[in-house]
Amino acid sequence: MAKQEDDFKKVISHAKEYGYVFQSSEIYDGLSAVYDYAQNGAELKRNIREYWWKAMVQMNDNIVGLDSAILMHPTVWKASGHVDAFNDPLIDNKDSKKRYRADVLVEEHAAKIEAKIDKEVAKASKRFGESFDKNQFLETNPKVIGYQEQIATILKRLGKSLETEDLADVKSLIEELGIACPVSGSKNWTEVKQFNLMFGTKLGASADSAMNLYLRPETAQGIFVNFLNVQKTGRMKVPFGIAQIGKAFRNEIVARQFIFRQREFEQMEMQFFVRPGTQKEWYEAWKENRIKWHLSLGIGEDNYRFHDHEKLAHYADAAADIEFKFPFGFKELEGIHSRTDFDLSSHEEFSGKKLQYFDPELNESYVPYVVETSIGLDRMFLAVFSNALQEEELENGTTRTVLKLPAVLAPNKAAVLPLVKKDGLPELAHEIIDELKWDFNVIYDEKDAVGRRYRRQDANGTPFCITVDHQSLEDRTVTIRHRDTMEQQRVSIDAVKSIIAKEVDMKEWLKKMA
Amino acid sequence: MAKQEDDFKKVISHAKEYGYVFQSSEIYDGLSAVYDYAQNGAELKRNIREYWWKAMVQMNDNIVGLDSAILMHPTVWKASGHVDAFNDPLIDNKDSKKRYRADVLVEEHAAKIEAKIDKEVAKASKRFGESFDKNQFLETNPKVIGYQEQIATILKRLGKSLETEDLADVKSLIEELGIACPVSGSKNWTEVKQFNLMFGTKLGASADSAMNLYLRPETAQGIFVNFLNVQKTGRMKVPFGIAQIGKAFRNEIVARQFIFRQREFEQMEMQFFVRPGTQKEWYEAWKENRIKWHLSLGIGEDNYRFHDHEKLAHYADAAADIEFKFPFGFKELEGIHSRTDFDLSSHEEFSGKKLQYFDPELNESYVPYVVETSIGLDRMFLAVFSNALQEEELENGTTRTVLKLPAVLAPNKAAVLPLVKKDGLPELAHEIIDELKWDFNVIYDEKDAVGRRYRRQDANGTPFCITVDHQSLEDRTVTIRHRDTMEQQRVSIDAVKSIIAKEVDMKEWLKKMA
Repeated sequence: MAKQEDDFKKVISHAKEYGYVFQSSEIYDGLSAVYDYAQNGAELKRNIREYWWKAMVQMNDNIVGLDSAILMHPTVWKASGHVDAFNDPLIDNKDSKKRYRADVLVEEHAAKIEAKIDKEVAKASKRFGESFDKNQFLETNPKVIGYQEQIATILKRLGKSLETEDLADVKSLIEELGIACPVSGSKNWTEVKQFNLMFGTKLGASADSAMNLYLRPETAQGIFVNFLNVQKTGRMKVPFGIAQIGKAFRNEIVARQFIFRQREFEQMEMQFFVRPGTQKEWYEAWKENRIKWHLSLGIGEDNYRFHDHEKLAHYADAAADIEFKFPFGFKELEGIHSRTDFDLSSHEEFSGKKLQYFDPELNESYVPYVVETSIGLDRMFLAVFSNALQEEELENGTTRTVLKLPAVLAPNKAAVLPLVKKDGLPELAHEIIDELKWDFNVIYDEKDAVGRRYRRQDANGTPFCITVDHQSLEDRTVTIRHRDTMEQQRVSIDAVKSIIAKEVDMKEWLKKMA
Repeated sequence: MAKQEDDFKKVISHAKEYGYVFQSSEIYDGLSAVYDYAQNGAELKRNIREYWWKAMVQMNDNIVGLDSAILMHPTVWKASGHVDAFNDPLIDNKDSKKRYRADVLVEEHAAKIEAKIDKEVAKASKRFGESFDKNQFLETNPKVIGYQEQIATILKRLGKSLETEDLADVKSLIEELGIACPVSGSKNWTEVKQFNLMFGTKLGASADSAMNLYLRPETAQGIFVNFLNVQKTGRMKVPFGIAQIGKAFRNEIVARQFIFRQREFEQMEMQFFVRPGTQKEWYEAWKENRIKWHLSLGIGEDNYRFHDHEKLAHYADAAADIEFKFPFGFKELEGIHSRTDFDLSSHEEFSGKKLQYFDPELNESYVPYVVETSIGLDRMFLAVFSNALQEEELENGTTRTVLKLPAVLAPNKAAVLPLVKKDGLPELAHEIIDELKWDFNVIYDEKDAVGRRYRRQDANGTPFCITVDHQSLEDRTVTIRHRDTMEQQRVSIDAVKSIIAKEVDMKEWLKKMA
């Protein structure tokens, strides 16, 4: 755990130091759970967006894009269920005036009991040495069994109370467990209340005509309300998909884990409209397609796993997460959901308008079923970035910090380094940049010894360094250094572009999905 | 005027019919002054973004990107002046309960007098025929001179009242001019009040700890507050720029003219940080650079003009608009502003943090001056789209509707059309798509006669149609038809990709800026 926390801290500080992610409004001491993407982060994000968009929209002639607004008519969120059901159960401590998520307080209490089990395991492991059988111990040690039963009882009761909206029982549970406020230490709690997670705002100036709006908590509804317009004007035939990338907002009470859970975040969602009855096969097909997309980036098969939902949301008849091994453990990165006709039917009901598709092959109209793929762009960023950050021990005993981003996603594809700041080397370096910049983001770096510049570009995630030296002036060759292998080649200046292009071409990476 | 209005209506209906722009939440009868970009519009917008980003960030190694959040610390907007000064003066009619911008009511009254002048001119022109000298008439006709004086007096007084925030006098002016509510016809007005144009929201759940936030009304401040972090982590040397594309929000009272003035819109802004004293030359350089960018798209030199501001905003020492000839006349498309050190100095003051750059050449620290280029993405969309929409008379006497988008910006680069839906032609068409889709957005269209499909793709803005016929099966050739010239060539299937690539390659278009 300590190692994990330490690794995660390194990720956060590296992200800041190398211009990937800054705290929002940092000069005003920050805005909690909101982040800005800095010069390198903005490019990495752009490249992830592009990689997803190409794979979804450009590669599939039955998927089209959409860019709908963040502000929508408020009835959209009545129809989607967000006004009534997008809540967190909150409780205040009367002494500290601090507010908590009631369910999280209980879960944290359970986690403390879990920690006791870990302690028993560690003790026993030390005592028995190599002959220790952890599974056997967990199954037979009476103390541990007692703890496990406690946890199970607590979580079962919490689950039931939340499901039946019995908030009074959630409070009783907190009291029975003797949970105290971490700040005041007191057990003086208010009632548990539901708090809606949508940010509200008001449209219009006049008091009587002002309209209460929400910042959208998900991009999916923008797709649903435009479904029929897109289908008709785009002459789309079921099955077809609509893809969208955009911001969404959730007023999380406890937002944490850096960019993993932010109040303002970006989603990449695709809704695939299918004939009712065929949703299961499309659901399986999209699970397969999406994991292939992830694996094409070469981030390591072991870092991904599927988690099938047992408890389904009210709108779903099947759902799975693609989980990624973040620095803090396996967590949801993407969701694939078979949403049935819930959303479209609900919008039909609330709008009084028909949202049906006439299927020329079946010669009948129906509300299509929907299979959704939904990935958090910020989470994808964190997955790629945290996995790429490595401390490498070198043969000479030193270590280097290297950000092994997939070259296709790296913010800058090359850095051009004149060996010295004179003798016409900077001029030649700029000449090379002027040639490369038409195709790639390229940066110029002339400060410090060249070895130090290599390390800097390693940490920056730049896949190639091109060094211009005195020989370059004579024979128009340069040294090209590869970030991951640290190998150096002497090549003609004319060859540089194609060497880089081969490694960073999005087409070639997407072909790995096949 | 009628012709203009008619043209503009055609633009709006074409945008909907061909999947470019839909009213937001249309199935709920829409959300006023908010729009969604549909399947073709989303791609056109993406391409405009990309064209701007490449020209700004990729082509200039002293400009880097940023992607800062919409939510920022509220003090940012105190420092920027938006909390205190980003207001519209509003007035309500007590009978109709309708709310108006007081300044607009007065300006519209002045416009009516202007219309009287036009009438006099028209009358005199008819009377005198060819010998009519308009300028002489305007300078000598007593009636016209009287009208001109009225207008000047009204606008001068309005300007002064607004400048001195004498809102009572704005009301007196409305009363003295006898302005009536267009809805109720009554002159029964409330006081004039300032109304802030920022959308507000609340962060956090707890009543005591909730923080009042704003949706950003401009993206520029995200650049200013991150200036020093970017400069340091990116090792940038003045002069350098930070570019950003993102959403901004303004609670406009009277929002209209389709996507020209929306409540939610997207900006493409670049702040260029320079040594104090050099701002004038950079201001001129950026004016030149930006107009070149516009002209590179080949939309026509006559459609652009510079408008230098005479009255400068409090933060500026020079400012100009690039105006475009929209269907409703010349209006601001982009602004180039020399913003001095106003913003950075103000953030220094409000944050208590130094925002200075150490200039190694001068060996001194200073707050840089800023030259800004700021373009509305939605306005750019409207400029490109409205200019592209043309009704063309053909030689055979018929007309065609064609959307002559610059090929580099067109949503789909080609449509592949099998002549008939059998004999293996659809299969060959898909084979061609499978080859092209790695490089371009390509669509498949098999419905209706091929002539009708050509017209449809003309109206869609697709630069190339590739028709697959029976001969294609024999010799692997196809017909490629060019949207603008309607010329058709018979070419080998293998040649199609490079024919398209040559016309749509962003690099080649950007080279026209040189």
